[in-house]
Amino acid sequence: MSDALKVAVLGCGVVGSQVVRLLREQADDLAARIGAPLELAGVAVRRPGRHPDVPAELLTTDAAELVARDDVDLVVEVIGGIEPARTLLLDALARGKSVVSANKALLAEDGGTLHDAAAKARVDLYYEAAVAGAIPLLRPLRESLAGDRITRVIGIVNGTTNFILSRMDATGAGFDEALAEATALGYAEADPTADVDGFDAAAKAAILAGLAFHTRVTTSDVYREGIGEVTAADMASAKAMSCTVKLLAICERTKGADGVEHVAVRVHPAMIPRSHPLATVSDAFNAVFVEAEAAGSLMFYGRGAGGAPTASAVLGDLVAVARNRVSGSRGAGESAYADLPVQAMGDVSTRYHVALDVADQPGVLAAVAGAFADNGVSIQTVRQEGRGDAATLVLVTHTARDAALAQTVDRLSGMPFVRRVASVMRVEGMSAE
Amino acid sequence: MSDALKVAVLGCGVVGSQVVRLLREQADDLAARIGAPLELAGVAVRRPGRHPDVPAELLTTDAAELVARDDVDLVVEVIGGIEPARTLLLDALARGKSVVSANKALLAEDGGTLHDAAAKARVDLYYEAAVAGAIPLLRPLRESLAGDRITRVIGIVNGTTNFILSRMDATGAGFDEALAEATALGYAEADPTADVDGFDAAAKAAILAGLAFHTRVTTSDVYREGIGEVTAADMASAKAMSCTVKLLAICERTKGADGVEHVAVRVHPAMIPRSHPLATVSDAFNAVFVEAEAAGSLMFYGRGAGGAPTASAVLGDLVAVARNRVSGSRGAGESAYADLPVQAMGDVSTRYHVALDVADQPGVLAAVAGAFADNGVSIQTVRQEGRGDAATLVLVTHTARDAALAQTVDRLSGMPFVRRVASVMRVEGMSAE
Repeated sequence: MSDALKVAVLGCGVVGSQVVRLLREQADDLAARIGAPLELAGVAVRRPGRHPDVPAELLTTDAAELVARDDVDLVVEVIGGIEPARTLLLDALARGKSVVSANKALLAEDGGTLHDAAAKARVDLYYEAAVAGAIPLLRPLRESLAGDRITRVIGIVNGTTNFILSRMDATGAGFDEALAEATALGYAEADPTADVDGFDAAAKAAILAGLAFHTRVTTSDVYREGIGEVTAADMASAKAMSCTVKLLAICERTKGADGVEHVAVRVHPAMIPRSHPLATVSDAFNAVFVEAEAAGSLMFYGRGAGGAPTASAVLGDLVAVARNRVSGSRGAGESAYADLPVQAMGDVSTRYHVALDVADQPGVLAAVAGAFADNGVSIQTVRQEGRGDAATLVLVTHTARDAALAQTVDRLSGMPFVRRVASVMRVEGMSAE
Repeated sequence: MSDALKVAVLGCGVVGSQVVRLLREQADDLAARIGAPLELAGVAVRRPGRHPDVPAELLTTDAAELVARDDVDLVVEVIGGIEPARTLLLDALARGKSVVSANKALLAEDGGTLHDAAAKARVDLYYEAAVAGAIPLLRPLRESLAGDRITRVIGIVNGTTNFILSRMDATGAGFDEALAEATALGYAEADPTADVDGFDAAAKAAILAGLAFHTRVTTSDVYREGIGEVTAADMASAKAMSCTVKLLAICERTKGADGVEHVAVRVHPAMIPRSHPLATVSDAFNAVFVEAEAAGSLMFYGRGAGGAPTASAVLGDLVAVARNRVSGSRGAGESAYADLPVQAMGDVSTRYHVALDVADQPGVLAAVAGAFADNGVSIQTVRQEGRGDAATLVLVTHTARDAALAQTVDRLSGMPFVRRVASVMRVEGMSAE
C-alpha cells in the first residue's frame, strides 16, 4: 500500500456532500482498489455552519488556499459555474494536482484551456460526472470506442425537461402546468432557465461531441432551442403520428456541401416514434444512443442527476486519477486531433413535421406542396384531418437542409389560406429518410 | 509521434478478419489517437490459403513463433478456446507484450493465471470483447464504477439463445423449431451446445462477477441451466402473467446464513415482466443491467456478437494498451482484493413460478399450499385456471432459498392429485419480493 493521497473537495452541495460521505464510508474499498488510502484534506464551502456532517476542522471558506496546500494531491470540483471554478482548477493543474470535475458549464465553455493546462502539467483532468450523472458515458466514448468511428450521438441528457415532457405526454398538460408540477416535486429549480431553455443540455452536447469526434467543441458551437415553446397541440400532433416529444442532444459527423467532414451539434425538442428506445425513457432518467461504424448502435441508460449517482461518477474518476498517481502515470489526455469544422444549423439535414390549419378549399394542397418544392424540400407523408373550418394538413418531410425547411415554414405561414401554423417540429429517429 | 508499435493478431476468423480490416482502414485515426502508428506484424492462421484479404507475407501458421518475435509489442488473441490460446498468451505476457483477448472461455476458466502473468511482467491484459461484444461493459465496471459498490449485475449476454426465446415468444414455436430457425438464419452454430446449454453465458457471467465484486470467479463457480428444457407451455404460462422468458446471467452480492458476504453467480432461463427493460431486448441483441448503491440502476445495450462489433471492442482495448505503452505506463490491473466466497445455488434467494395440472377437487389447494409452507416457502399469488380435467394451479412464490423451492416442487410432483407439473421456472425482476 502506497502513502495516502490527499483530496480537496471544492463545494459541498447536493453532489459534494455525497462525495464526502462516500469517501468516508467506502474508505477501505477505495484504498484496496487504488493501492493507497484516500484522505480528505479539506472541504471548501461558503457557509461552514451548514455542514454538520463534515468534521469542522476539514471545512474552510478559502478554496484557493485549500487548492494551494502542498499536501493536496487531488482536487474534486463540484461547485459548478464558470468562476471561481476555472481559476481554482487552473491553479490546481498548474500546481501538478490532478482534477476531477462535475462542471459541465465550465468544461463546455472553456474545456480547451483546462485540457491544455493538464497536458502541460502532465496530470489528469477527468469529468465523467459532467454528463449524464452516473451513466458511464465519457469513458466509453473516450476509451472503449477509441478504435471505432463514431457517426452519431443522440441522447436525452436533461432530467428536468424530460420530466416535463413526460408529464405533458402522459396528461395532456401544457408546458406551464407541467413545469409547475416539476417545480413542486423538486425536479425543476426555482429558476429553471438553464434546464428549460436547453443550456444544460447544450453544454453536455458540446462535451459529448468533442469526445466523439476528437474535436474541440464549445457551447457556442451548439445550436440550441429549449422546450418553452412546446405546446399541448404539438404533443397531440406527435401522438397522432405515434410519436412523442423529447428534448434531444444530437451530435453528428456530417458532410458539408464541399464534401468536407463537419461536426453538427444541436439541442432541440423533436418528435420521435414511440417505438424508438429513447421514447421509453421517462421522467428524470437519461439515455444516450451512440452509433459507430463497427460497433453499431449502443445505448446507455441510467440516472442522469442527483447527489449519489453523480457522486458515483466523481468517485469512479477519483479512483482512476489516484491509481494513475500511484503508478506515476497519466490517463488518456484530450484527443482533439481531428479538429473538424462545425456545421451551421442551416446546413444540417433534418426533417420537419408541420401541421397547418387551412381553409378547406380546392388548390390548397397544391399550393402547400408547391411551397415545399420551391425550397427543394421533398414531402414524405401528407394527410388532411377534419373538414371545413377545422381542416388541418399534417405533413412530414424527407431530410433537407434545415434552412430550407425553415424558409418553407415561413412561406407557408404567410399564405392567405393558412389560418394558423399549428405545430412545427423536427422529427428524429424515423427509419425512412 | 512515437515509433510504430507492432501488433500480432492470432486468429483470423469472423472477428480477426474485421480486426485486420479496421487496423488497416483506420490506421491514421488510430495513430493520432495513440500517438504512434500501429503496424500489423503478422496474422497467425491455420490455413493461409483462405485469407486472400490479408497480404500473404503477413500470414503465418506458426503462432508461437509470431508471439516470440522480438519486434512484436502487442498481441491480439481471437482464436478462442483454452488451448493453444492460453500457452500463447502466457508466453506473450512473459515476454513483456501486452495482450488484448476476446476469449471468454479462457478468461473465465483461468483468468487468474493470465492476470498473475500480466502483473508479474507489468504489462496489460484487456478483454472488453470477451463479454457482450461491442457494448462497453468491462471498462465501466472496472473503472467508471470503481468508486461505487455494485450489488447486482443482470444481463442478456448470449444472442443465440435470446433469438431462440424471442422467436418462441413471438410465434408460439417450441424450442426445436425455434432452434432450427436460428440455425437456418446463421444465429446458431452447427453445434449449438455452448450457447443453448448456457456455457457461453456462464463464462461471461464469471467474468462480470469477478469485475463487479473484486473477486476471482471461474466458470465452475457459476450455476448453469440452458434453455433446452424451455417449452412452449412455459412461454404460454409466462405470457399469461404478462412475462416473457429470457436466459439471464445474474451476479449478486449476497449474505450467507452466517451473515458473511458472498457472491452468487447463475445462468438460467427466467420469467421477467414485459415491463422490465430487459424484456424488450429481442433477437440477437445483448443488454446488461447494473445496480450499484450510489449510481442506482444502469443499463448497457447493443450488439453482443458479430465480427465488426466485437472487433470494435478489440480495437478500443488495443488503443488503450498502445497508449499505455507509449507513455510507459500500465492500465488498472486485476482487482480481486475482496475475495468473497461463492454461494451455493441452493442457498441463493430466488422466486419460482409453478404451474400444476391438478385434479379439480376440494382440498387440493390446501395440500399444495401445505407443501410450500412445510418447506418454508411463502406464496405471493395463486390462481386456478380451468375446471375439471383441465384445472391448472398457477403459483408465484416470494423469495426463498432455491433448495427449498426445488424441494417443494419435488414434493408437489409426487402428490397423487397433481397430474403434471406443467411449468417450473424462476422469476426475476418483479418488484414485490
